[in-house]
Amino acid sequence: MSQAPATTARRARGGGGAARRAERTAVSVDTAKYIERNIPNYEVLTQEALDVIEANAETVLAEIGVNFVDNPEALDRWRQAGAEVEGERVRIPRGLARKLCSTAPSQFTQHARNPERNVVIGGKNLVLAPVYGPPFVRDAEGGRRYATMADFEKFVKLGYMSKWLHHSGGTVCEPTDVPVNKRHLDMLLAHMIYSDKPFMGSVTEPSRAQDSVDMCEILFGKDFVQENTVMTSLININSPLTFDSVMMGALEVFAKNNQASIISPFIVGGAMAPVSVAGTLTQVLAEVLAGVAYSQIIRPGSPAIMGTFVASIDMNSGAPTFGTPEAAHITYGAGQLARRLGLPYRSAGSFCGSKLPDAQAAYETSNSLQMGLLSGVNFMLHACGWLEGGLVASFEKFVMDADQLGTLHHFARGVDISENAQAMDAIAEVGPGGHYLGCAHTQANFKAAFWRSDLFDYKPFETWDEEGARDTQALAAVRVQRMLDTYQQPALDPEIEGRLRAYVAEKKASMPDAFT
Amino acid sequence: MSQAPATTARRARGGGGAARRAERTAVSVDTAKYIERNIPNYEVLTQEALDVIEANAETVLAEIGVNFVDNPEALDRWRQAGAEVEGERVRIPRGLARKLCSTAPSQFTQHARNPERNVVIGGKNLVLAPVYGPPFVRDAEGGRRYATMADFEKFVKLGYMSKWLHHSGGTVCEPTDVPVNKRHLDMLLAHMIYSDKPFMGSVTEPSRAQDSVDMCEILFGKDFVQENTVMTSLININSPLTFDSVMMGALEVFAKNNQASIISPFIVGGAMAPVSVAGTLTQVLAEVLAGVAYSQIIRPGSPAIMGTFVASIDMNSGAPTFGTPEAAHITYGAGQLARRLGLPYRSAGSFCGSKLPDAQAAYETSNSLQMGLLSGVNFMLHACGWLEGGLVASFEKFVMDADQLGTLHHFARGVDISENAQAMDAIAEVGPGGHYLGCAHTQANFKAAFWRSDLFDYKPFETWDEEGARDTQALAAVRVQRMLDTYQQPALDPEIEGRLRAYVAEKKASMPDAFT
Repeated sequence: MSQAPATTARRARGGGGAARRAERTAVSVDTAKYIERNIPNYEVLTQEALDVIEANAETVLAEIGVNFVDNPEALDRWRQAGAEVEGERVRIPRGLARKLCSTAPSQFTQHARNPERNVVIGGKNLVLAPVYGPPFVRDAEGGRRYATMADFEKFVKLGYMSKWLHHSGGTVCEPTDVPVNKRHLDMLLAHMIYSDKPFMGSVTEPSRAQDSVDMCEILFGKDFVQENTVMTSLININSPLTFDSVMMGALEVFAKNNQASIISPFIVGGAMAPVSVAGTLTQVLAEVLAGVAYSQIIRPGSPAIMGTFVASIDMNSGAPTFGTPEAAHITYGAGQLARRLGLPYRSAGSFCGSKLPDAQAAYETSNSLQMGLLSGVNFMLHACGWLEGGLVASFEKFVMDADQLGTLHHFARGVDISENAQAMDAIAEVGPGGHYLGCAHTQANFKAAFWRSDLFDYKPFETWDEEGARDTQALAAVRVQRMLDTYQQPALDPEIEGRLRAYVAEKKASMPDAFT
Repeated sequence: MSQAPATTARRARGGGGAARRAERTAVSVDTAKYIERNIPNYEVLTQEALDVIEANAETVLAEIGVNFVDNPEALDRWRQAGAEVEGERVRIPRGLARKLCSTAPSQFTQHARNPERNVVIGGKNLVLAPVYGPPFVRDAEGGRRYATMADFEKFVKLGYMSKWLHHSGGTVCEPTDVPVNKRHLDMLLAHMIYSDKPFMGSVTEPSRAQDSVDMCEILFGKDFVQENTVMTSLININSPLTFDSVMMGALEVFAKNNQASIISPFIVGGAMAPVSVAGTLTQVLAEVLAGVAYSQIIRPGSPAIMGTFVASIDMNSGAPTFGTPEAAHITYGAGQLARRLGLPYRSAGSFCGSKLPDAQAAYETSNSLQMGLLSGVNFMLHACGWLEGGLVASFEKFVMDADQLGTLHHFARGVDISENAQAMDAIAEVGPGGHYLGCAHTQANFKAAFWRSDLFDYKPFETWDEEGARDTQALAAVRVQRMLDTYQQPALDPEIEGRLRAYVAEKKASMPDAFT
């Protein structure tokens, strides 16, 4: 397995003369390695609370059970695994789900077509991926509108160029101008061609999950895909306690092919789960146990991630709310549960309810990003670009959030306590009443000393005022345009690109358009 | 001591017929109790790192020393306490400063004229106070301008009406239209009259610290002030390692009168301290040890707080930067050092470098507020209203930040694991595929379940759009005006108010105006 990425790289990057020419002219894009935390996790639940929640989750599975809907084969599998099946209800005896989960790896490598962009998901790592799913986009100039494939490609390009983003994501927005039954092909092609970072597969139909695998086999080679994980895909649970056949069908395809799935309750507290933190965590754990166990029934050892998407709710309006303390409690608590379960953990993101990339958006987002880092999240979907409760992918917020992700990288490094960092010579050299700007230690260390935003305004007031007194959104709009203007496609073997395009064209021609 | 507040309350609130009439007509303002954390602190430094930093700080004090400038009496005191004095340099033998610090209380009560607003500073508590020191103000309508006394009074009123703010603060902005040598009198009077929350004393001259004590004796009674702490004041250290006579003079007045001081290095990293986190923490600890030790030489047992104000620096422009990971490392680390020293801890705030209350401001602020909560800060100055690196007090940001402070309160409650919170009945009642909105558990618990902003937009897109598509600043501007329009002064014995006004008038008449 360890040889394969190099093979892929050679094939993808140096296959022929055209590929070599593409490589020579390509601009090198600076991407940070995924975060390897050198800091402790923050844990909000006591040992007693964890024990209570875990016991309750087993009770939920054993006594209430979960529904596997429209999926007789799943019911058969559960029966064979030792569960009690009654209609579509699956009751899982205490301990069985946890035991089944134990074959899932605690960490795994997701390969990218550029091996330098491979990510290791699990352990103390944090992999950052962009927003997923919005039907609308917004930018400062054009306002809010339905997303198109052109928007999608722009987001993939921005993601490729974003230094602190490790992953190209999946449905960065819904390209509503492409038929529903065909858009996954265009989306996958865009991730494969316009970026060299890892990406997600399609989950909206089992057949589309299979298309994702087929296209990966073109990109990476058939053997490589069977032996390695090249996609991490999002399998949402229909909370409470319901697993529908579309999502489970996609999960089955991915697990069979050793591809990773995020098994993720999608919860607005008080609607799809109890209004209380402890109750929500109980249900989340029960759902994840059942879902991951099912993935292991399909193929023991296939990679699965414990997902937790939780928003709170404004009981006045019914709107989901983000960046709230209750969502933070759940995110921290679910991280503890995931570590005890030995699974990688997905949660948090650039969540906000605001309609604009304004202060509300940033308060809510920052609250969510910070808790994501400290709660031990291993895979953070929605890490940039999320707006308006996930209805909107914002171009400006994408680059604003992506810039903030740099703070997570720097914080996660922990505190250097080397002799150089202790700076005792500097303190002696400068002495009482002195100034450090010119001292030897400062000169030797200032370049790497402080994280610096590439976006924010650090100018003197007068300069800023003369330049138009721009707010963050205005600065971000300039940055978006500059990035798109200077984007250059990462080199890809033209033969592979041709085969991918042919696959997409053939598939599209094989069926009529469908818009529902 | 425990009887005195009631006496004060009786005097302040029920002294005569006019006071009773004022009390009857006063609107009750809802103020949350200071935060009593039911959550763990986050600790970024290892035991080894803490040991190294503490040993290095002792080396700094013993071998480099600190300067007490223009203050021969302080040098005498240090000599008598066992330090080695050479010129203005004070070298403190290893262990001496820490030993002197041991008489400072680990927590203390700061009394307010309304005893319901008393705060306990230390332990696991967090007391929130507004921005301190800006010479400018900004609002959406008037833009940026020099602050006036009218602005100051507005901020005191907003602070009084802010539910999540426990403290009225000190120089919420610099009233530049009042002579420098007299403005402290007007500021103190405003805090005493327009709010009933605790406040800070003046530190810009020892005589002004004495005026602060004198005015408190009118407000609280002379005996009460001598027996209780009624002010917490900000004593900045001239980092690196320098204690000037103005600040030390104020400290001497406050310590002698048993009033609390925050002994606070003011550091822009790379300028007033080394560029490294470990080096900065070493200097911060050395400075606090020396400053708090000095307060205990003046009066053993007088309350002192370990302060840490740290910004990072943009080495391109020289501008201080906020909400950065390095500042977070220092804030977390200094919290650990403060707890090992047994002192209350002051740090964090609504820090940002942005010129506007926009997304940059909110990202930076939220990063700082969150770390303040998790780092164990006991007294958070600048908790709302800070803009443009502290040059500006923003009306809109004041209410935006003050609203966010609610998230800290709710997060700090920790996770309820009671049988009701476990919600097993609800999970059973709703079952797979059901909906929690109508279930009994939700109906019984939804009101208190989720924190809700009083400011942010939670409306459907269409409604928000029809109402003008307002951003957070615009919503905040409306809120500022509504609060000021409905403000009502908290009841105060007219006789006391008269004596305070007379004191101020007399003091002002006793000296010519000075504007430097």
